[in-house]
Amino acid sequence: MSITAARLAAQRLSALRAQLVHNGLAGFVVPLTDEHMSEYVGEYAQRLAWLTGFGGSAGSAAVLASRAAMFTDGRYTVQVRQQVAGDLFEYQDVPATSAAQWLAEHVEAGQRIGHDPWLHTRAWAQGTATLLQAKGAELVAVAANPIDAVWHDRPAPSAAPLELHDETFAGRSHADKRADIAAWLQARAADAVVIAALDSIAWLLNIRGRDVARTPVALAFAVVHADASVDLFTAPAKITPAVRAHLGPDIRCQPRDQFEAALNAMAGKTVIADPQSCVAAIFAALEAGGARIREARDPCVLPRAIKNDVEIAGTTAAHVRDGAALTRFLAWFDHEAPKGGLDELSAAERLRQFRAETNSLEDLSFDTISAAGPNAALPHYRVSAQTNLPITRDSIYLVDSGGQYRDGTTDVTRTIAVGTPSPEMRDRFTRVLKGHIALARALFPAGTKGVQLDALARQHLWMAGLDYAHGTGHGVGSYLSVHEGPQRIAAAWSAQPGNDEPLQPGMILSNEPGYYKQGAYGIRIENLVLVESREVPGAERDMMGFRELTLAPIDRRLVDVALLSAEERVWWNDYHARVAAEIGPLLTDAEEQAWLEQACAPL
Amino acid sequence: MSITAARLAAQRLSALRAQLVHNGLAGFVVPLTDEHMSEYVGEYAQRLAWLTGFGGSAGSAAVLASRAAMFTDGRYTVQVRQQVAGDLFEYQDVPATSAAQWLAEHVEAGQRIGHDPWLHTRAWAQGTATLLQAKGAELVAVAANPIDAVWHDRPAPSAAPLELHDETFAGRSHADKRADIAAWLQARAADAVVIAALDSIAWLLNIRGRDVARTPVALAFAVVHADASVDLFTAPAKITPAVRAHLGPDIRCQPRDQFEAALNAMAGKTVIADPQSCVAAIFAALEAGGARIREARDPCVLPRAIKNDVEIAGTTAAHVRDGAALTRFLAWFDHEAPKGGLDELSAAERLRQFRAETNSLEDLSFDTISAAGPNAALPHYRVSAQTNLPITRDSIYLVDSGGQYRDGTTDVTRTIAVGTPSPEMRDRFTRVLKGHIALARALFPAGTKGVQLDALARQHLWMAGLDYAHGTGHGVGSYLSVHEGPQRIAAAWSAQPGNDEPLQPGMILSNEPGYYKQGAYGIRIENLVLVESREVPGAERDMMGFRELTLAPIDRRLVDVALLSAEERVWWNDYHARVAAEIGPLLTDAEEQAWLEQACAPL
Repeated sequence: MSITAARLAAQRLSALRAQLVHNGLAGFVVPLTDEHMSEYVGEYAQRLAWLTGFGGSAGSAAVLASRAAMFTDGRYTVQVRQQVAGDLFEYQDVPATSAAQWLAEHVEAGQRIGHDPWLHTRAWAQGTATLLQAKGAELVAVAANPIDAVWHDRPAPSAAPLELHDETFAGRSHADKRADIAAWLQARAADAVVIAALDSIAWLLNIRGRDVARTPVALAFAVVHADASVDLFTAPAKITPAVRAHLGPDIRCQPRDQFEAALNAMAGKTVIADPQSCVAAIFAALEAGGARIREARDPCVLPRAIKNDVEIAGTTAAHVRDGAALTRFLAWFDHEAPKGGLDELSAAERLRQFRAETNSLEDLSFDTISAAGPNAALPHYRVSAQTNLPITRDSIYLVDSGGQYRDGTTDVTRTIAVGTPSPEMRDRFTRVLKGHIALARALFPAGTKGVQLDALARQHLWMAGLDYAHGTGHGVGSYLSVHEGPQRIAAAWSAQPGNDEPLQPGMILSNEPGYYKQGAYGIRIENLVLVESREVPGAERDMMGFRELTLAPIDRRLVDVALLSAEERVWWNDYHARVAAEIGPLLTDAEEQAWLEQACAPL
Repeated sequence: MSITAARLAAQRLSALRAQLVHNGLAGFVVPLTDEHMSEYVGEYAQRLAWLTGFGGSAGSAAVLASRAAMFTDGRYTVQVRQQVAGDLFEYQDVPATSAAQWLAEHVEAGQRIGHDPWLHTRAWAQGTATLLQAKGAELVAVAANPIDAVWHDRPAPSAAPLELHDETFAGRSHADKRADIAAWLQARAADAVVIAALDSIAWLLNIRGRDVARTPVALAFAVVHADASVDLFTAPAKITPAVRAHLGPDIRCQPRDQFEAALNAMAGKTVIADPQSCVAAIFAALEAGGARIREARDPCVLPRAIKNDVEIAGTTAAHVRDGAALTRFLAWFDHEAPKGGLDELSAAERLRQFRAETNSLEDLSFDTISAAGPNAALPHYRVSAQTNLPITRDSIYLVDSGGQYRDGTTDVTRTIAVGTPSPEMRDRFTRVLKGHIALARALFPAGTKGVQLDALARQHLWMAGLDYAHGTGHGVGSYLSVHEGPQRIAAAWSAQPGNDEPLQPGMILSNEPGYYKQGAYGIRIENLVLVESREVPGAERDMMGFRELTLAPIDRRLVDVALLSAEERVWWNDYHARVAAEIGPLLTDAEEQAWLEQACAPL
């Protein structure tokens, strides 16, 4: 990090500490998330990044009077050391420790440690309070976040209007979806459910927004009642006449700052809230108001994950369009990179342009990971002017990127040879590829969970004593979050435990094994896949498999063909024949067409 | 089932119902287990088998005045229909339902349903009580089991003396083990831990017993104190002078019927109990006596599972000895079976004799599954005079068996062709074999859990739409239980959820994928394997793999060699070369030697 950045971080940490003294607090916890437990948050809520400089998507900090610490998991081991000043914040590894454990270790009896109850789950607050109590210290909820008091140029929450998500994309009316939630409430003899997750609200009401970069959601809370009516709490400026008409008479709009008062007014009602997405302050407001609280998973989560036929057709079309843009980039890159002069930033920008030239790109689905050489060894690297590396000969380049289109969200990683890759790189790439193919080809019976399939993608790396420190697959939304639950393909022991939801037809997942050699290079091969039912002749079980949504060539120059089995070669050739057949017609440039043809020739 | 058996079952059910009326109970729950939550129980405790005729190792029954039901999981779907009278007991599938759910569905308000608190966990009792309360009914703990009142010829608990398990087999003194448990208690600021699991007591004190068929445990409870002393509650007749000398001054022996009073006397002490192996009555007695109860896993479970070097050497020797006996059986079977005249019972008896001829067999490790034709489609079949089938030509025969030796416990399944197997049988066998080999060859990093590896064994069946409805691997004791936790290789969605314990070097597991065609045939290939550390050149992680303990030929006549990969053939040839090298020297008969040679020739 630069000297300027280090000085700025020191000033901000000092200012926060002064504010804590002013508030009578011995310490404070700074999470990454917002009032909706979002993974990606609006600029107004980026308090962790403001305080520490950390730009990853998972982490937290804890500040005491004389020491502070930054908590990140295995994905960010390197990045945190580049972005966060080690003399200000000790680097601490999760799950070996946590902010709560670290605080419990360093607090003194009688001290009060603050937390913002709008930014933590109740389980976190209860667990942390118990740990601090054992040391005679106290966890207290602050009425106002002390960072906001010292972050003088903090942006206001976005006032962008809501946007309609037409039924031609959503496949179902919001009345239909609300009726399902109402039936769900009636079956539980409950009066209402609080929905705090932004993507759940967007899904339920067929609305989208521009309040958070990369994820088309709008800042809002919702309470769905057993009569299928909804109280929607969002800034009045967001409700255009078209939105008001779309929402109809059963949706009552109220200002977002009325949400807490509304929760306070639910005395005697049986109200369901999801402890994973509803923050501690929501439970506290319901309790204070005398509601009977029941915990259950947000009822939008599962129907949102299981895409309907219209959403499946949409994402299929979006992936062909996106695959054509990526293919044009790959052809351009192969032509330009060997000349020298490309760097991570210019390559990412050229890729963005190809996507923009589809004329239907609403946004990228996340900040492009454009990574050369050692930067690619950081699985969650984000290029910046400070870290930008040139793309040199005889190296490999990794690009993980995606687009937000009205009909679907994409996410794809390709690893590309520039010049001549080393034998080790080809060995590692081929092991990653074999894992990718094993998962892509797998058939599995109804009831199978992602944790059961994870090892299929790792097995060939394991045979060489290698592995990767991230999950193999995450769910993806329909013009929504690029990371979406409840399904996941991951080892149970990863930092983010695998979710237990069995895979079901209609779910979208990524298939993205990788390999990372610190200080040297990184490899990842990622396609999105759709879970679908499979007719298997003679089958005795209901079987499922994956259909590739992502269509773009994988770099054959990195493959050691001798290491592939016959079945793996068949998969490769079938996949690339599909890529050629579906992407080819969208290319108008003869050079691009010729490039695609050679890239998709049988192995 | 025979008419006699059906009449007997009806009489017993009537007698129980009369007893329930006498006790003021509207119903009663009959589990399979004993006061130690054992999987295999002494004859005195086989109340479920006495009442229903069910001979499986997992199940329960519920009895109301006008209806009764039997609850079993997928492993026993067929067997329960053969053994339990359907006009007396409705067949109910677990986990789709449970005794508790079924009772809650059929009870009437005001009814009292009995349960024996010495045969259920507290979690079960609390969950069931809640379900019954919702219907206005009550779950009550009985002071005496009403079955015992009507089971007039119920055997007394075994009075067999304790036996010493010498340190030359155990590898550690009981003083050493007790010191570890004491340190564990001190680290938790606890005074004592109640040990109810019979195999934990046997492991801890280096004792064995003859109280339960097939598992060399003794009926006892133990309380281990923070000073490393132990109160051992067992019948005084079991304590021979040699046992008394072995136990030494730190073990205080008391009659088993003093256990409850001793729990009552722990007022003010902090006492740990494992909610999985300590029954509800133990918690109730501690509570009634005023102890401070803390729940934690039985501290013997993990060290018992991780075998020490002496135990590893012992089990290795036991497996060579057992493998030679099995090999002699396989050679004999190949000679005899094609002539006709063999049946399941005679084959099982001949196999027992070969094991007995080692002169070191203490017992079988479980009732031999000797299964011809359709009987082999029942994964947990147990041959009896009623079900005994002849072993015919052009069929396959499955034998799952094991021995208890002082130095180790074995468990092995071989599936054998008689005459010419069908192409379908060979295809299925080869898919099972490929799964077996995939698991056997796997390398995996430290931290890996069994649930992650399970699919490796199923993948080739899944590709054909096939599966098996049981776990892939269970832990095995050292001259102890043939089923032992906490490690397990299983799908998380199986009836018995996979245990979360990461695999560690020194653990023993079975590797036993199978395939079952109902009404036709069954296939299983089972070896025991030892988890061991592996040095992998260039490895970036601490890696582990499996070493085969079981040594006996797998039937090459059932293999479709064209379906095997080069790596799979290498595994087969390496394994059989080891079998030939290690088993060959133990065979003295020239015909047996010749048979082994051809059975182990390279594929």
